[in-house]
Amino acid sequence: MPSHYRLKRRVHFYETDAAGIVHFSWFYRYMEEAEHALWREAGLSIAPRETEAVAFPRVSASFDFHQPLYFEDEFEVNLVVEEITAKTIRYTATVTSGDNHIATGSLTIICVSKKLGEPMKAIAIPAGITDCFQVKS
Amino acid sequence: MPSHYRLKRRVHFYETDAAGIVHFSWFYRYMEEAEHALWREAGLSIAPRETEAVAFPRVSASFDFHQPLYFEDEFEVNLVVEEITAKTIRYTATVTSGDNHIATGSLTIICVSKKLGEPMKAIAIPAGITDCFQVKS
Amino acid sequence: MPSHYRLKRRVHFYETDAAGIVHFSWFYRYMEEAEHALWREAGLSIAPRETEAVAFPRVSASFDFHQPLYFEDEFEVNLVVEEITAKTIRYTATVTSGDNHIATGSLTIICVSKKLGEPMKAIAIPAGITDCFQVKS
Amino acid sequence: MPSHYRLKRRVHFYETDAAGIVHFSWFYRYMEEAEHALWREAGLSIAPRETEAVAFPRVSASFDFHQPLYFEDEFEVNLVVEEITAKTIRYTATVTSGDNHIATGSLTIICVSKKLGEPMKAIAIPAGITDCFQVKS
Repeated sequence: MPSHYRLKRRVHFYETDAAGIVHFSWFYRYMEEAEHALWREAGLSIAPRETEAVAFPRVSASFDFHQPLYFEDEFEVNLVVEEITAKTIRYTATVTSGDNHIATGSLTIICVSKKLGEPMKAIAIPAGITDCFQVKS
Repeated sequence: MPSHYRLKRRVHFYETDAAGIVHFSWFYRYMEEAEHALWREAGLSIAPRETEAVAFPRVSASFDFHQPLYFEDEFEVNLVVEEITAKTIRYTATVTSGDNHIATGSLTIICVSKKLGEPMKAIAIPAGITDCFQVKS
Repeated sequence: MPSHYRLKRRVHFYETDAAGIVHFSWFYRYMEEAEHALWREAGLSIAPRETEAVAFPRVSASFDFHQPLYFEDEFEVNLVVEEITAKTIRYTATVTSGDNHIATGSLTIICVSKKLGEPMKAIAIPAGITDCFQVKS
Repeated sequence: MPSHYRLKRRVHFYETDAAGIVHFSWFYRYMEEAEHALWREAGLSIAPRETEAVAFPRVSASFDFHQPLYFEDEFEVNLVVEEITAKTIRYTATVTSGDNHIATGSLTIICVSKKLGEPMKAIAIPAGITDCFQVKS
């Protein structure tokens, strides 16, 4: 039952912008990469192809940016499970590169049922999923 | 029955890279934006939400790059229907910015049937679609 | 002296994900598109090619997501200047599609001096820039 | 003196589109990721921060797509140096996932000198770079 995940990554060229640094929109993707790796470590896929009954859209996401990342920089995303409620999971993420503190983020997801032609509807997270994670103590 | 489409666009900051120019991967997206605008002009959506029985994956796409585009440059994508066969449509695209010839591309799409859990299978393009376009003369 | 900007946009196919909706990372780009359009309306470019002495990296950005956007949906981003301090500008953004309230965001940028080989350093926003905007009353 | 590189990767969620498969524009990025990893293996960076005198824009890139990739699929990009001329390098790329042949690509880059405010100008690739690669025999 993992409570966190450390993703190691290197900056790709297409993630940089004309200011010469990683475009800020990429940090939200880095955070999600770490989340999906956490789910895989827990034996799950957040979006399995077979079953589309349940999905986990994001309800809020934020980042504070402290220092820039550059092309080919190696960095880590440390994603932590902060809270699990009946319908939501909240994570925090810290992005570091060596000793440099790059960015601090937060992400909340919600469990919804999906039926073609109907609006998404928030539901309780299946026990088979919440049982796979634990809040970081 | 349109045979071509002229898309006018401006370069967004997140489309540039650390070399200070639009990253080449964006031109394939620009070409597709023009394609979908062409379909809308023909009264169609290339991916309607209601019916997922038919889809149009790309089978080949290429670009030659002549000059760079920069942040906030205004440019045009001129997309032309070059060929319609039983199962495929082939377009060419020229990207210009003022008098500058920026890039020349080509895109071929194929019609497939989609069923959940089954591999995609090439099928004839429905007549209701081919009737909406004509090859540029 | 503009205090806000209304950006009208349509969802591109490449902005959607396998859940069938716009990937959440795109909303931060939509907000930035509106910001750069606001700067153009004020007669400025946020990243002119000639002078690279001053830049405006993002120090924080957040979004709450209320409803999804789908391929080809038309939507608006209403960006508002909320606060201007000596070194920072803070905006809020509301994303709507027809009568639907899609998302609510916030963005803070900071003015830095850029010299090749030196770290970015926060400086006062030049008066020639702050004079071009006003806080929404 | 490497002549090829095998990049192993997994599909990220944000690389998929509403058709449920990787959007075709990503393959050009995958190919470039493999190219930059090849350069690192040769002891080089294709875009070092210190020196901006020389750059390697792309002059043409193409892909034929045979089968789709899905979220979390593991795949390989096998990038091969096919030709080195005075000013250009041409690669081919094959993308596979297990036994499935996914896509076949081609990429040609050119060496240019970069000076702020001047247009890019094609120049001979420095010997210190061409000496680091060999054409696949």
